[in-house]
Amino acid sequence: MTAQPSATQVAHFTLTNGLEIVVIPDHRAPVVTHMVWYRNGAADDPPGKSGIAHFLEHLMFKGTEAHPKGEFSEFIAGIGGQENAFTGPDFTAYFQQVAKEHLKTCMEFEADRMTGLVLTDEIVAPERDVVLEERRMHCDTDPGAQLGEAVQATLYTHHPYGVPIIGWGHEIEGLEREDALAYYQRFYTPQNAVLVVAGDADPEETLRLAEATYGKVPARGGRPERLRPSEPPAVADRLVTVRNEKVQQPNWQRHYLVPSCRTAEPGESEALDVLGHLIGGGQTSLLYRELVIAEKLAVSAWAYYHGTALDRSRFIANATPAPGVALETLDKAFDRVLAKFLAEGVDEGALERAKTRLVADAVYARDSQSDLARWYGSSLALGQTIRDVEEWPARIDAVDADAVLDAARKWLVAKPAVTGHLLPLEAEAA
Amino acid sequence: MTAQPSATQVAHFTLTNGLEIVVIPDHRAPVVTHMVWYRNGAADDPPGKSGIAHFLEHLMFKGTEAHPKGEFSEFIAGIGGQENAFTGPDFTAYFQQVAKEHLKTCMEFEADRMTGLVLTDEIVAPERDVVLEERRMHCDTDPGAQLGEAVQATLYTHHPYGVPIIGWGHEIEGLEREDALAYYQRFYTPQNAVLVVAGDADPEETLRLAEATYGKVPARGGRPERLRPSEPPAVADRLVTVRNEKVQQPNWQRHYLVPSCRTAEPGESEALDVLGHLIGGGQTSLLYRELVIAEKLAVSAWAYYHGTALDRSRFIANATPAPGVALETLDKAFDRVLAKFLAEGVDEGALERAKTRLVADAVYARDSQSDLARWYGSSLALGQTIRDVEEWPARIDAVDADAVLDAARKWLVAKPAVTGHLLPLEAEAA
Repeated sequence: MTAQPSATQVAHFTLTNGLEIVVIPDHRAPVVTHMVWYRNGAADDPPGKSGIAHFLEHLMFKGTEAHPKGEFSEFIAGIGGQENAFTGPDFTAYFQQVAKEHLKTCMEFEADRMTGLVLTDEIVAPERDVVLEERRMHCDTDPGAQLGEAVQATLYTHHPYGVPIIGWGHEIEGLEREDALAYYQRFYTPQNAVLVVAGDADPEETLRLAEATYGKVPARGGRPERLRPSEPPAVADRLVTVRNEKVQQPNWQRHYLVPSCRTAEPGESEALDVLGHLIGGGQTSLLYRELVIAEKLAVSAWAYYHGTALDRSRFIANATPAPGVALETLDKAFDRVLAKFLAEGVDEGALERAKTRLVADAVYARDSQSDLARWYGSSLALGQTIRDVEEWPARIDAVDADAVLDAARKWLVAKPAVTGHLLPLEAEAA
Repeated sequence: MTAQPSATQVAHFTLTNGLEIVVIPDHRAPVVTHMVWYRNGAADDPPGKSGIAHFLEHLMFKGTEAHPKGEFSEFIAGIGGQENAFTGPDFTAYFQQVAKEHLKTCMEFEADRMTGLVLTDEIVAPERDVVLEERRMHCDTDPGAQLGEAVQATLYTHHPYGVPIIGWGHEIEGLEREDALAYYQRFYTPQNAVLVVAGDADPEETLRLAEATYGKVPARGGRPERLRPSEPPAVADRLVTVRNEKVQQPNWQRHYLVPSCRTAEPGESEALDVLGHLIGGGQTSLLYRELVIAEKLAVSAWAYYHGTALDRSRFIANATPAPGVALETLDKAFDRVLAKFLAEGVDEGALERAKTRLVADAVYARDSQSDLARWYGSSLALGQTIRDVEEWPARIDAVDADAVLDAARKWLVAKPAVTGHLLPLEAEAA
């Protein structure tokens, strides 16, 4: 095993208003990454208001009483910094990367828009059009995205992970200023936020800066409750087919509902990580070797376990068929590969290589200040601890062959799944 | 066209507390049917509390302060009456059929349990076990029911019609006394109810009785809002397969999302009624003639338009394959029958016979006092008017061949659908 992340370097504080603070020192350059993570994402959108988390993320750039529209972004651009924001199913995050001397100003701006957001109908209506256009461009007119949305909605029939992060078009159209404000007031509180500062920052000094800025934001009640219906047991296999004239390249996919890092039994999420890598991580994986190299049924094939989620998550396999190969052939080929994996057991050398690779990727991620900040931020936003993050390599290292096979038997073989087929109009099922 | 229902006989009143009253005189026997319809059903269950409408229906028999457990039912049984209750997606209804002289006592009991329900944990917990057992017996252990639930959940990915009326097991387990009371207090109000009295009852006298009983129930706010996310446009065909060792007889089904009587353009719901009858109503229908008689692919085949719903509803086709016929063969055969229907157009004689049949069935329904009461009650609970009900035969009569073909083209041919396959374990797809 290569170098472990050093747990002692990362500092963790909580302000009296409930704001959690993580400081990850990285003194290679005089730069800091400043992120605020809110523990709410698209899966917390109220029923009928899908897209509100993402829409509010857009609106958060529209200015506050103290700093009208554009001032924050102009400041960042003016000092040669970078900024961005993103909405996931479980969190929403805002970040800036700036020279270290500007950290306090970033904090002032970000703390200000935790309470001071100004929304008028004149601001909200055109931004809603921007989001609707984003949806039209990236979802409604892209058959691959349509399949993705339809598969997701079929896999999650009850839990809100079935709803696209951007929201359903007809519901975005109905999002009003009052919806955005109600959502903002419910979720954008210090109790519900995690501040992550990575880079050339001293923990104690960062804490002082945070107290002087975020510390002034009054606490508001407890952490907001997340109301998410959970998925009933799946009893049926489901095949979702999108046929569209725009499809040039058919695609095959398989989605299984599996535990996330937050819902798994101890060790299970890590076993699924290793399983994903063994079955479908890169060109040495079983899926690639069987489907692409040996059987020549596909030109690409991969699998992936998405463990970073608050609620039940997904194990995904994906393949692009070789010319002339029907997607039904890939359905059966995948089942065959899985059966072969279980029959032959796990090669110890392959297991060790997979674990080394997974941990190495995590260690390399630390070379990117913003990736590292993202890792801690997303983990804490999901309710994990610093220790959970830092012990992850050791937990991966502890996964043995039995755990991997058990995970495959329990979550893939025995469970109904959703299969997705993307096809051109003229192509008929074989 | 045969005899029209006589509109003038039905009386319609509204009490000052908001309760609507419909009186349908039927003096053939000294009997009355007394029903109370609440404008809330399983699709109004709050997120995460699926099954609460149905659970409360059970709990409504558990007694009030004035009439402890069993008194109401014992009274009905003692006078040789009948009683029942049912929960649908859009309404919940309670009814008794009794000798006419007991109408007022029924009203007293029913008005009493509109406000006086007593629930303790000692009542709620065992009844929850009863419902869970009902679910286990009728849903979880019946592959046909499992397929039905999975198809419904796949057709409605976002709208609550995708959730079973009885609720998902894991959510029923979590239903508490407080949930039932909150639901009761929100929905069981005079404003939200329709009283239907059919039988040997005089309208004015019935109104006086209602005023003396239901009239004492205080109004509580406006009619409760129904918060139901609507379904996004379907972009994918979906195939839902349940394979189970208990399946003796495979089954094929196809479900389309179509307008209900409440969401359709004028005439469209009636055209779908006629379409359903032409394609799949009985042994003279196209589907039966083609699949069962001509091609011998199926031993039964039918189709049906379910128009009685508040939100988008379903057009369903169903077939039982002949021995040795793969369900994929039925997929293609149904598409072929539909294409043939559109290519050949509607035979005028068949159209007239279908319309006559539909109206005749409605007229015969009037011979059953309780069916008639149900028809008015369900229609009014969906927000239709007495006139909507009474003009339905004339609207069916007005459907022409073009309207039927347009409905088929618009809602069946052009739209993605959900297909269901029920198969024994050993049967492999052909």
